[in-house]
Amino acid sequence: MEKAVLITIGDEILSGNTIDTNSNFIASELKNIGIKVSQIYTISDEIETIKNTLKLAFESGDLVITTGGLGPTRDDKTKKALAEFFDDEITLDEETFNHLKAYMERRGRLDILERNKEQAFVPSKSTVFQNHYGTAPCMMMELNGKLSYSLPGVPYEVKPLIRDQIIPYLQEKFSLNYIHTRIVSVVGIPESVLADIIEDWELDLPENIALSYLPVGTRVKLRLTASGDNEDFLKEQTENEIQKLLPLIKDHVIATSEDRIENILSELLTGKKLTISTAESCTGGELSKMITSVPGSSKHFMGGVVTYATEKKAEILKVSQETIDKYTVVSEQVAREMAEGCQKLFDTDIALSTTGVAGPGKGEDGKEVGTVFYTIRINDQEVTSKLYMPHLDRLDFMNFVSQKVIQDLVGILVNSR
Amino acid sequence: MEKAVLITIGDEILSGNTIDTNSNFIASELKNIGIKVSQIYTISDEIETIKNTLKLAFESGDLVITTGGLGPTRDDKTKKALAEFFDDEITLDEETFNHLKAYMERRGRLDILERNKEQAFVPSKSTVFQNHYGTAPCMMMELNGKLSYSLPGVPYEVKPLIRDQIIPYLQEKFSLNYIHTRIVSVVGIPESVLADIIEDWELDLPENIALSYLPVGTRVKLRLTASGDNEDFLKEQTENEIQKLLPLIKDHVIATSEDRIENILSELLTGKKLTISTAESCTGGELSKMITSVPGSSKHFMGGVVTYATEKKAEILKVSQETIDKYTVVSEQVAREMAEGCQKLFDTDIALSTTGVAGPGKGEDGKEVGTVFYTIRINDQEVTSKLYMPHLDRLDFMNFVSQKVIQDLVGILVNSR
Repeated sequence: MEKAVLITIGDEILSGNTIDTNSNFIASELKNIGIKVSQIYTISDEIETIKNTLKLAFESGDLVITTGGLGPTRDDKTKKALAEFFDDEITLDEETFNHLKAYMERRGRLDILERNKEQAFVPSKSTVFQNHYGTAPCMMMELNGKLSYSLPGVPYEVKPLIRDQIIPYLQEKFSLNYIHTRIVSVVGIPESVLADIIEDWELDLPENIALSYLPVGTRVKLRLTASGDNEDFLKEQTENEIQKLLPLIKDHVIATSEDRIENILSELLTGKKLTISTAESCTGGELSKMITSVPGSSKHFMGGVVTYATEKKAEILKVSQETIDKYTVVSEQVAREMAEGCQKLFDTDIALSTTGVAGPGKGEDGKEVGTVFYTIRINDQEVTSKLYMPHLDRLDFMNFVSQKVIQDLVGILVNSR
Repeated sequence: MEKAVLITIGDEILSGNTIDTNSNFIASELKNIGIKVSQIYTISDEIETIKNTLKLAFESGDLVITTGGLGPTRDDKTKKALAEFFDDEITLDEETFNHLKAYMERRGRLDILERNKEQAFVPSKSTVFQNHYGTAPCMMMELNGKLSYSLPGVPYEVKPLIRDQIIPYLQEKFSLNYIHTRIVSVVGIPESVLADIIEDWELDLPENIALSYLPVGTRVKLRLTASGDNEDFLKEQTENEIQKLLPLIKDHVIATSEDRIENILSELLTGKKLTISTAESCTGGELSKMITSVPGSSKHFMGGVVTYATEKKAEILKVSQETIDKYTVVSEQVAREMAEGCQKLFDTDIALSTTGVAGPGKGEDGKEVGTVFYTIRINDQEVTSKLYMPHLDRLDFMNFVSQKVIQDLVGILVNSR
């Protein structure tokens, strides 16, 4: 059980209506138990196409997982294709029907049970994993020791099926090793110099721990991947190795667990016991959303304001009308006063502000689309920067700017140690 | 020129590190000129795999677009695979080199021109589309009247290449058919019931109109895709079919043109000249971000606050301490007072509020993870609802709740017509 192939079924992905996030989730969950995704096929909901793709997938993979193409409407053909491919017939599964009935009952929708009854029909050779968050069951089939799972396409039904049922099943059935991964984020040392400094430590790593260097912008991520049959032991073992590593590069390490920049920020703020708040204009809430997307952020994030209307910048954040009139609302000066007002309003150690033009229309003061000023204020110190990103569309712009503000703040916090 | 196949090259997608957003963008741009994506292959960065997949792709598609696997820090296996597949050799392209040089010069990085020179080497038979936002050029190849384009993987380089260069090129070269798409958004009817109700209408649809069901949260989107050589006729034809559909499900239709719920809201607010503001807790800024993601939202969105810390709900939104003490911070009463305070603070017609526990840890008042109260306040009318979504992870929860709040508001605005 080493290689998996994913099949995403559905015209909503091929038509560009929906972004496929299931494959991403499944691939990263499989990686945690040491199974690598070698290929993803995204195909349309047609019986012949599904059968042909199952054939291709089983040629190269030990495990095939399909998502989508299961549901109560007429364009769902996955089940028929499964039955034909495995030379099976579709029959009513009593247990699945009872599960469906209980599910409908809990939701007070027994009136439409009959219409959804079809969902309880599955290939007779399949093993069913019940879906607790939707009506389409997950079906497992076996072919020459290889396995296939067919799941519905709705992400919040896919996640618990994979995490709570399929992963544990695979782990037990194939006595899969546990994989434990830690990421150490290093800044301010070129990759080649870093490799020199930690060479002895690297050579002394236990055999079950693999190290890789992942450069991301000006940061190098050191990834330790440990595998073994005892999860607790792996955790202790990697932590020990990281403790040996730290004295060698201490001043350059910005995080030892987290990977995403907002998680690194969270770790830093928690460690330094600092509080933070945001005052946004062009990022429209994306900055505070990124910060609050991290579990436990309520410990340091006090709150934020999105002052879209200019007069609200004056009223709520106390940006002076004189400054706005003199420098326009998209200016270094306004960014600074927004951060200052924000810090007072939320009474935090750190305040972040953004003011700019996300486009596609020009700002009211005629500033170019893609211009943004942002301020990072820590206690009574502050730094204001300008970005000009005219090639990004509105959502990408909001996201890019928010990422950059957080990355700059992380840089400052690390260097002030 | 009817069917396209996309090939996404790169281990960062297969490992679950990165979500593939390029395919989504490309598919929806191609759809607009009547080219259907029939398949997406996501594969690893290996010469043999790339060549085999190109072969498969050309068997079923008239147009093949690859993204990823091009760049200065990579092995550049895509280019080698291209040259081998098309039986070509890689040579220095003067025009591409001059473009690269000018690009580096504008960025003050002529010092690393030599290291990037390899980017100007392309298969000799290729037609180059210059990349204005990165160093890897886009290469077009031809095979028996079929076309392939190879693009870099960075989304903000892909978007302008596709939109500004490839789409116009294809439109002109192949005098393409028109495609007209309409989306009818339906709420309050389960997909299976909806399918029953509109079955006769669906069976009677003209052959050039395709229908699909796209469930999104508790909404079902019905997509009509019409193709033909007369754009005006297609518009009239789909409008006629929608007029036949509406009497069947009238009270459940919230929009017949716009697709994303935030765009539907924007259209409604603009039409009714209403202003709006938000007061968020558990959604952390996602709600205001969704509203501001729509171009032109500054006309109706005055601003928002994210009051994460309980005392800020009292200070900024004037939620009474008594209410918080009596009912706890995650309660119907606090949601109501938040909306009221928000409406006053931003002086808007409409105010939305959310308070809940996104998890994974319990809220400070011990409320269950996944519980949320939200209020929609319009002038002096308000409605407060409760949701319990314990199975969603933190980000999905923030997104689902925001979607639901906007959807409810849209429902109210539609019914008050």
